[in-house]
Amino acid sequence: MALTIHDLDTPAVVVDLDVMEANLARMAAFCRDHRLRLRPHTKTHKVPELAHAQVRSGACGITVAKVGEAEVMAAAGLDNILIAYPVVGALKVERLARLALRRAMTVALDSREAAAGISAGLHSRGASIDVLVEINTGFGRCGVTIGPEAIELARYVASLPSLKFRGVMVYPGNMLVDAGKIAPLVQNERTRDAEIVELFNRAGLPIEIFSAGSTPSAPITGDLPAVNEIRPGTYIYNDMNTVGSGACTLADCATTALVTVVSTAVPGKAMMDGGSKTFSSDTLRTGKAAGYGYIVEDPDAVVSGFNEEHGHLDLRASGRKYRVGERLRVIPNHVCAMINLHDQVYGVRGETVEVVWNVAGRGKLQ
Amino acid sequence: MALTIHDLDTPAVVVDLDVMEANLARMAAFCRDHRLRLRPHTKTHKVPELAHAQVRSGACGITVAKVGEAEVMAAAGLDNILIAYPVVGALKVERLARLALRRAMTVALDSREAAAGISAGLHSRGASIDVLVEINTGFGRCGVTIGPEAIELARYVASLPSLKFRGVMVYPGNMLVDAGKIAPLVQNERTRDAEIVELFNRAGLPIEIFSAGSTPSAPITGDLPAVNEIRPGTYIYNDMNTVGSGACTLADCATTALVTVVSTAVPGKAMMDGGSKTFSSDTLRTGKAAGYGYIVEDPDAVVSGFNEEHGHLDLRASGRKYRVGERLRVIPNHVCAMINLHDQVYGVRGETVEVVWNVAGRGKLQ
Repeated sequence: MALTIHDLDTPAVVVDLDVMEANLARMAAFCRDHRLRLRPHTKTHKVPELAHAQVRSGACGITVAKVGEAEVMAAAGLDNILIAYPVVGALKVERLARLALRRAMTVALDSREAAAGISAGLHSRGASIDVLVEINTGFGRCGVTIGPEAIELARYVASLPSLKFRGVMVYPGNMLVDAGKIAPLVQNERTRDAEIVELFNRAGLPIEIFSAGSTPSAPITGDLPAVNEIRPGTYIYNDMNTVGSGACTLADCATTALVTVVSTAVPGKAMMDGGSKTFSSDTLRTGKAAGYGYIVEDPDAVVSGFNEEHGHLDLRASGRKYRVGERLRVIPNHVCAMINLHDQVYGVRGETVEVVWNVAGRGKLQ
Repeated sequence: MALTIHDLDTPAVVVDLDVMEANLARMAAFCRDHRLRLRPHTKTHKVPELAHAQVRSGACGITVAKVGEAEVMAAAGLDNILIAYPVVGALKVERLARLALRRAMTVALDSREAAAGISAGLHSRGASIDVLVEINTGFGRCGVTIGPEAIELARYVASLPSLKFRGVMVYPGNMLVDAGKIAPLVQNERTRDAEIVELFNRAGLPIEIFSAGSTPSAPITGDLPAVNEIRPGTYIYNDMNTVGSGACTLADCATTALVTVVSTAVPGKAMMDGGSKTFSSDTLRTGKAAGYGYIVEDPDAVVSGFNEEHGHLDLRASGRKYRVGERLRVIPNHVCAMINLHDQVYGVRGETVEVVWNVAGRGKLQ
């Protein structure tokens, strides 16, 4: 007899496989249509089997955030891995060298210190790696400023043994805004991208890979002619922030937490058995929804707050009657943060549990 | 040669053992002085060895949030375990019954559904358990209202096989406020507690255990004469929210995240290699500090935001010079949420790593 979602204890992360497969196919088709290489960021799911599914659906390789995530993916047979994060420190560089001896690896970086450290560590071990120089197009996180210092860093990279300068990485993360506010940001990003291309061409360092990130910004990549590779992550599952950004609909959210109502003692409220240790405390950054998640069975309920193991449902606007013991499904605000709190996720087709995946990359913080 | 903190890769959670041991001793002494039983909430650390240290320093038993955490602690030899959370659903009740056959177990609950489910599941397996009725004294999370419904639920519990009514549980969680605002809340809590005692006495259901929670409220438990048992959790480590509540000082914060500066490319900022997947996104709820953590080496730096793996340092008020590759120590806003993201913590004496603990209870969400 097949396992069903009714056999799962709560809280549990449930992935609707039909929705997820449609999400994979849609992004792959978008990239084919727009002649973009797709290099999905696997930090969203951290499951090697899903990374393989992304490659089967047309990805050219994968993106990870940390050396530890790259090790998990490489051990599972993935290849052509971009670490979209500065690899700093001798311990990480040593592990990166071991990876680079077995797999095609790329790193993004924005400092001479990172470049010098990686070059020295890889060269002494006979390994080599591709490098993207990260450039700040407005998000203000990592990335050198557009101008002489970007060229100086690229030249420095090109001069070092074991490093090959391949292009640039940008993060249009400021695209995580309400759909209606996106147009001026797209215009700004397009102008910056053109400046970057012109700058590097003039310096005799033509950009081969121009990598841009994020699921919310993916749909507008067609309007960014410089970009030829994208690194969306969230699109495989989607979440309330993606809905709010206009990059997907509620029906495209593949992943929910299955929870149980554990208390209805306080008038006007109900408590579910998932709080910040199930969902994370990540707030909504986009859209019209409110609170810490969307109750599929009762859109009028507001997830008004979290404690570690309690999710507070404010029922003042809801006509629904809640009872202790019943189950609900909740779309999280930020699915990447939720997945990172779980050791397993359950892939379901209808109510049948078809597969259980280990979140093998979870906790690989170094 | 001894392992030192310089040998650890980042991000890593580091526990100063001298500070932690002083925290354990201080809370144990407070409880002895005030004739309170100490039943620490182990959700903060989730490490069985630390639960044993708490028992050695005078705790009467331990508190956990979930059945899965109770299983981890029981398997490691802990006994006299309170699950301070409604146990709802047949799968959890079956596991609770197995625990109750081997260990002295107590559960808190606030519904007839929870009581009936536990009674049926335990009775059929020949197990029994102590029960605390949870009462809402103002926090508005779980807990029945003070009045006839509280007595009705207690009578129902007392009438069911395999359940023994032992008393009440309250959560003065609204005590997590700035130190200056606490006096009226203490007065309110004292009034409510007295009502509860009077109510149960009149009903012929004398309260044997009156359990109150939380580290911020622990210091004022001496002013709550009804309370005879407390469940503080955070005190073993402490964090910025505890500092803000006035229940400890910065010097009492035993646990930091060791991080590396990975980027200084954006003017006025630096990036550290810990974000919401290292610290959680939990915001400050108390005190005068700002941001997402306290940089030990530079109190003028503001941790202005997190992405998953990036911690943004706003350096506009700082005179310190940052360089890629250097390490910092960061006191988190909410240490319980941070610990829950890590598989190991490193216990250090000075700079020497004296012990590595597995966070064995992490991820035991069911």
